[in-house]
Amino acid sequence: MKSQGFILWFTGLSGSGKSTLAQHIAPILRGKGLQVEVLDGDEVREYLSKGLGFSQEDRDTNIRRIGFVANLLARNGVCAITAAISPYRAIRDEIRARSEAPFIEIHVEAPLAVAESRDPKGLYKKARAGVIPQFTGISDPYEAPTNPEITVHTGSESIEESAHKILAYLAKRELAGA
Amino acid sequence: MKSQGFILWFTGLSGSGKSTLAQHIAPILRGKGLQVEVLDGDEVREYLSKGLGFSQEDRDTNIRRIGFVANLLARNGVCAITAAISPYRAIRDEIRARSEAPFIEIHVEAPLAVAESRDPKGLYKKARAGVIPQFTGISDPYEAPTNPEITVHTGSESIEESAHKILAYLAKRELAGA
Repeated sequence: MKSQGFILWFTGLSGSGKSTLAQHIAPILRGKGLQVEVLDGDEVREYLSKGLGFSQEDRDTNIRRIGFVANLLARNGVCAITAAISPYRAIRDEIRARSEAPFIEIHVEAPLAVAESRDPKGLYKKARAGVIPQFTGISDPYEAPTNPEITVHTGSESIEESAHKILAYLAKRELAGA
Repeated sequence: MKSQGFILWFTGLSGSGKSTLAQHIAPILRGKGLQVEVLDGDEVREYLSKGLGFSQEDRDTNIRRIGFVANLLARNGVCAITAAISPYRAIRDEIRARSEAPFIEIHVEAPLAVAESRDPKGLYKKARAGVIPQFTGISDPYEAPTNPEITVHTGSESIEESAHKILAYLAKRELAGA
């Protein structure tokens, strides 16, 4: 009676709403009887990403590590939700190719101006001031997915609208009840 | 209908038989309907431990990382099996204290002479030659558990005998069917 695990891979600019959406969706999926793990926040930074910096190599290592853990969870029947910026297309595609469970890429799209105006952690301000180097969208590229399973537009949609798109997609694929 | 996850934390010298026992037990537990993940081997080294060395700080980081991932799996209903040497008592106890699911420490005990005579990866030879620094049992301490849930003696027991001890313990705790 194993349930089907899968990966919900949110990708988008800092401030695009990835974490907000992940935290909004997780309890809804739990309510449908799924095991859900959100790989986000302090725990991941403390245990998986500690010591890694902002070079492309370190970023790639970080994303590969999150992808590895998401896959471990998903192949054991868990819905693993990740909410890292994950700006580089090649690494996302690598993780998709390695995934042993359905990999669902969700592009959390917001115009830079909108994301920057939210700036929940004050990171854009620091990036504009040059305090944070290689900041995605400012001084480092964000490579949008070319063919994501789902795109949500958080600049123009409400959280509920974006969440509804994702839940409808999962219901259609029979990964989570309608 | 969530099943109860737990952590089987094997600890012991290199060559004590941790991995052998873990690989022997995993399919038996799967046969009882459990989700089982063995955190051992190349995948873990490649994705979780890459870049870490032999200093106490790096070893601690490695073990904490494995403990973090084991806990993620166990709190989602998976039986997470780890088979790292994990020589330091304080770190094992820290992981036990943080675990959100039953933490079952299994001391895989073998006399150093027995473990060294097996030397499946030729590591003791390199450690004796000074090629590998700070090698557990040779040039770095192994701190045996003071109160492990299970102790197996792989120098005098067969694999089947050691596995039987573990399975009997899990049945008694109603974590895996008898």
